[in-house]
Amino acid sequence: MIGVFDSGVGGLTVVREIFKKLPDYKIIYFGDTARTPYGTKSKETIIKYAREDAKFLLDHGAKIIVIACNTASAVAADILRKESGVPVFEVIMPAVRAALSATKKGKIGVIGTRATVSSGVYETMIKKDNQGIQVISQPCPLLVPLVEEAWLNQPETKKIVRKYLQPLKNQQIDTLILGCTHYPVLKNIIKSRIGKKVVLVDSAEEVVRELKEFLAKNSGVEKSLGKDGSHKFYVSDLTPQVPKIAEKLLGRVVKMEKVEVG
Amino acid sequence: MIGVFDSGVGGLTVVREIFKKLPDYKIIYFGDTARTPYGTKSKETIIKYAREDAKFLLDHGAKIIVIACNTASAVAADILRKESGVPVFEVIMPAVRAALSATKKGKIGVIGTRATVSSGVYETMIKKDNQGIQVISQPCPLLVPLVEEAWLNQPETKKIVRKYLQPLKNQQIDTLILGCTHYPVLKNIIKSRIGKKVVLVDSAEEVVRELKEFLAKNSGVEKSLGKDGSHKFYVSDLTPQVPKIAEKLLGRVVKMEKVEVG
Repeated sequence: MIGVFDSGVGGLTVVREIFKKLPDYKIIYFGDTARTPYGTKSKETIIKYAREDAKFLLDHGAKIIVIACNTASAVAADILRKESGVPVFEVIMPAVRAALSATKKGKIGVIGTRATVSSGVYETMIKKDNQGIQVISQPCPLLVPLVEEAWLNQPETKKIVRKYLQPLKNQQIDTLILGCTHYPVLKNIIKSRIGKKVVLVDSAEEVVRELKEFLAKNSGVEKSLGKDGSHKFYVSDLTPQVPKIAEKLLGRVVKMEKVEVG
Repeated sequence: MIGVFDSGVGGLTVVREIFKKLPDYKIIYFGDTARTPYGTKSKETIIKYAREDAKFLLDHGAKIIVIACNTASAVAADILRKESGVPVFEVIMPAVRAALSATKKGKIGVIGTRATVSSGVYETMIKKDNQGIQVISQPCPLLVPLVEEAWLNQPETKKIVRKYLQPLKNQQIDTLILGCTHYPVLKNIIKSRIGKKVVLVDSAEEVVRELKEFLAKNSGVEKSLGKDGSHKFYVSDLTPQVPKIAEKLLGRVVKMEKVEVG
């Protein structure tokens, strides 16, 4: 079983990629909708929540964990790798690798929540072996609530995206990391604002591409996952809004069950 | 000690009113910033959180509880009244009474979070003894994140406020209840959009006016509160953003301490 967790429903964009690239694998998803969002909270609180989320997935038989949340990836991936005893995938490094191979001018933009951007994780990881690369980061805290309201094409959303992207446009970036799993559904308006020549790096796509490569090489783990095509979706709170936005992010309707975690 | 709790920092507008109308009283405030917002969550989850928040205040010596959160007031006030053993004030009924005395045409608008509006509590309470009154409710889920980003005068905020208020303006309401403790800081842009003739009912002002009247009549409770002018502010998560927005909502700088609740 592939375990995927997120602060809420944004991580369903990662599940959508798993559906595309790794159909038939058993999936268990946990979205912490009772405590969402993580992106405005402190490192300490996010680590506590990520540990509880991962424990839920492991207790339910996950043999791989995918942290489908940039905020939790940024602050809790190393801790979960040490503690969980299963392979842990996160959404930061795959995006970093994709951005490094895409950039020509060495000017990479990063957009994400306040917590992700403050952590400096993208900048640190990009510059680690590539000191000459320029990284321009921009926190976009209002995009998660806008996506969760399903305001995907509203003029207000376009205006806010425009405002957030202006500093990145001014710096003439050639590659932009969508550093939050909510953002892929805004890809079109981001693309039209930042310019068609800028390569958009979608962390959901990249993590699943790397997961697929990993499974091709690690048949022991691959076999332990199970391939009966069953999917289970759990959330810590279930309002009428949750299935609505889940459908938009996932591209299909799924049954969701409420559980208590933490 | 007057205990005040909220899902986050919005309830500080109620504390600001206590500072104005009831200076010198001891205050303890708890803001559940680790689980904020409540307004997008389910009734069941909100009740659980409200119980834990009230318990924290009572354990620390509160002799009165003010629920400074419309969402929690809407779904948890009656439960806390039964369970807490102290007088419980909430922000719904004072606003309902004020709106009923203000309206001339009998057309009252209500804006709030999705949970508050879905609960139908304002409409139910307004119509209880006044069936002829027309209530037009509008959920405004993006206003809380906008206020928490301190985007108080941004053109994007104005545009979103305009969009939300349009249906209320079309219905020619003459009174508008600001059904969320975050909204008083947006009063000016709400006023300019909805029109100067519309009476704005600020639930923070109304609940503290009623609390003051209650204390004038109940000297036993009043004496138990203590009046050394001390204030304690607790939050369940403390990011650099929290004191910034707290200062905007409260109009002054206060020390905040992080605690675990629940």
